[in-house]
Amino acid sequence: MMFAVKGTFVDTPLIGAYRTRVGYAVVDSGVCLGVFSTLPIEYSNIDIKDYGNSLIIPGMSDLHLHAPQYSYCGTAMDVQLLEWLEKYTYPEEGRYSDIEYAKKGYANFVKDLKNTTTTRAVIFATIHNDATLELMKQLDEAGFVAYVGKLNMNRNAPDYYCEKSVEQGMKDTRAWIEKCNFKNVKPIITPRFTPSVTDDYMCELGKLARETGLGMQSHLNENRDEIKWVKALCPDSKHYSDTYDRYGLFGGECPTVMAHCIYCTKEEDELIKKNGVYIAHCPTSNENVLAGIAPAGYYLRNGYHIGLGSDVAGGHTLSLLDVMATSVQVSKLRSLYVDNSIRPLSMAEAFYMATVGGGSFFGKVGLFEKGYEFDAVVIDDANPDNPMEFAIEERIERLAYLGCGNIIHKFIKGA
Amino acid sequence: MMFAVKGTFVDTPLIGAYRTRVGYAVVDSGVCLGVFSTLPIEYSNIDIKDYGNSLIIPGMSDLHLHAPQYSYCGTAMDVQLLEWLEKYTYPEEGRYSDIEYAKKGYANFVKDLKNTTTTRAVIFATIHNDATLELMKQLDEAGFVAYVGKLNMNRNAPDYYCEKSVEQGMKDTRAWIEKCNFKNVKPIITPRFTPSVTDDYMCELGKLARETGLGMQSHLNENRDEIKWVKALCPDSKHYSDTYDRYGLFGGECPTVMAHCIYCTKEEDELIKKNGVYIAHCPTSNENVLAGIAPAGYYLRNGYHIGLGSDVAGGHTLSLLDVMATSVQVSKLRSLYVDNSIRPLSMAEAFYMATVGGGSFFGKVGLFEKGYEFDAVVIDDANPDNPMEFAIEERIERLAYLGCGNIIHKFIKGA
Repeated sequence: MMFAVKGTFVDTPLIGAYRTRVGYAVVDSGVCLGVFSTLPIEYSNIDIKDYGNSLIIPGMSDLHLHAPQYSYCGTAMDVQLLEWLEKYTYPEEGRYSDIEYAKKGYANFVKDLKNTTTTRAVIFATIHNDATLELMKQLDEAGFVAYVGKLNMNRNAPDYYCEKSVEQGMKDTRAWIEKCNFKNVKPIITPRFTPSVTDDYMCELGKLARETGLGMQSHLNENRDEIKWVKALCPDSKHYSDTYDRYGLFGGECPTVMAHCIYCTKEEDELIKKNGVYIAHCPTSNENVLAGIAPAGYYLRNGYHIGLGSDVAGGHTLSLLDVMATSVQVSKLRSLYVDNSIRPLSMAEAFYMATVGGGSFFGKVGLFEKGYEFDAVVIDDANPDNPMEFAIEERIERLAYLGCGNIIHKFIKGA
Repeated sequence: MMFAVKGTFVDTPLIGAYRTRVGYAVVDSGVCLGVFSTLPIEYSNIDIKDYGNSLIIPGMSDLHLHAPQYSYCGTAMDVQLLEWLEKYTYPEEGRYSDIEYAKKGYANFVKDLKNTTTTRAVIFATIHNDATLELMKQLDEAGFVAYVGKLNMNRNAPDYYCEKSVEQGMKDTRAWIEKCNFKNVKPIITPRFTPSVTDDYMCELGKLARETGLGMQSHLNENRDEIKWVKALCPDSKHYSDTYDRYGLFGGECPTVMAHCIYCTKEEDELIKKNGVYIAHCPTSNENVLAGIAPAGYYLRNGYHIGLGSDVAGGHTLSLLDVMATSVQVSKLRSLYVDNSIRPLSMAEAFYMATVGGGSFFGKVGLFEKGYEFDAVVIDDANPDNPMEFAIEERIERLAYLGCGNIIHKFIKGA
């Protein structure tokens, strides 16, 4: 139950600054008891895993991704959001009504997710109960901690991939939640986005959230056409955020992740902050489906909860290291072309978002600190052929930009 | 001398459209004799290399990169161009006065370049003759075709990394050219950029170009501060391009590659087109050092010569597949935030730039066509775990976005 990990630990207790410690992390029942430069005498008999000069970083939390879209990851990048859903997403997600297809698709996804720095994730599945449970089972067996949502979607979707009534949808959703008996994988309420869910359905989902105490995930302000559409669908709403908030599905008592948040109004920003809504910043996806660039630096530096999302398959990669690099790159373009009052993100800020920024949605996660769950990724980045030597922050930068490192071990909750 | 390659050949004889052929490419003395659906009877005795379902794409040409910067690739991304040069570039390039250091640094570079789709490149070295010759030797031995430039730089550089006089610089440059006796690696005249080269030195380099028939490479319109600086340094020039052109170093009789071209004026564009100057589009670098986004789609669709450049180490990757993906992504952001009259690049357009677009700087290169030099990369992208099947264009997209493929063979000039 108790062991120590020896090596070079890098984390970001403060936004924008790395903390590096060489020493021993002591772990008991999945929880970190602290990082010590020398092993305290009371732990002298525990097993020590020594990782030499490898980097040990916190496991990363992917706050937004669509598991059934992983199969077509890296394709279908030629259209904007709404057309993209119709043309590529719905046909593929619809295939998950076939449980055999779902088993294969999710096995491919989980296999590849293992080879990333991700240890936790907040995930969209499809409208299908069986396939969603299959995904949760596979993730749980692979050791991941995750919130997974069976989708709710009862309008503006093709016949073959649309829930037929609010009543049936609620019945299915309750039946699904009852079957979620996994160790580390939990259900989360998942209205796809406002255009997919009628007000009466959203209202019922809000009641379900209050009744069960479950959290929720959805999309917000990703694309200008989407925003106009939401306004047309919900003419009496104050803004896009209000279409969730008026049913109790926007933070507060209901832990909430909202993906994108590129075009929030000032009023929406205030609500996001007041309600402690988590923002999933998805820069790779936002480039690919021509959505735009979110003001992530603003949110991060002004007390909002913000983490990173791969948003596969709008995003083309499961690697949050890649997403970190992209978040820095597009923040530079944003400062150049959109708003130079928000300085570009540093890599340390991106690292913060990928680790403790998103990790805190899961509790005490994302730091090597007493009382934090021990999620850690051990990366061997040695390259004897390179004539230069690198400081710790440069080694992190190279991991993000070049991916030049081998993941040699991953701990999730100490396992 | 003669052999056939069997497999699935993908190239882009027309901008923006893939051509796919399954069959046999016949190669004689490094040159393609054609691609045939069945092997013509007269070649029935030649050796056949069968690559099954792997993709066979043209070798890619990297029109702009700095080999001595490769060591610090993926770091030093926190400042803009001019500060970046002072703070990171000059100190590292200066170390190449030590031939032992150069040997190690260039070996690391050439080793990694082998693991990419690149078969040809146009490369900046340093001001040092010995180190530059070492790089050329290593590239030549590894089978690459390349133009490599010993740098010319006699102002605005630190003492330890600055040529002392025009006379000495010209003497060194001539001595270097005389020693360039390699099979496939040739010299190219390389004034770093106008701020680094006095007018009298530029003038002498222009004479040298006319005398030797050599081409030239440099930088153009990368950064707004740089452009202002050039104007201040050369107040009598018509524009940045003129600072090269007035000395005969801007296309025409002198084959020229200009990196970046983000902020060219209309007058400069006309000169670039008239003189057949090649544009090296470097989107990864342009993001990283906060330069901007070049109007690559405009150039590509309007008869300019344009290829891709990794621009290591402003660019963070040697992989032109990565650069292709980034060129598409930033073209979307440009259409959204800068100029929506230029539609985003398609991946087929990016592929064109990476292959025949840049390849034509080397002659008949970048297509599987009779008379073209046979540069080819064989990539195994099979993934039996993925439940989806992909069309050829999707397989190319996935190579670019995900890098999901193994290079199993590379031919350069048929070898």
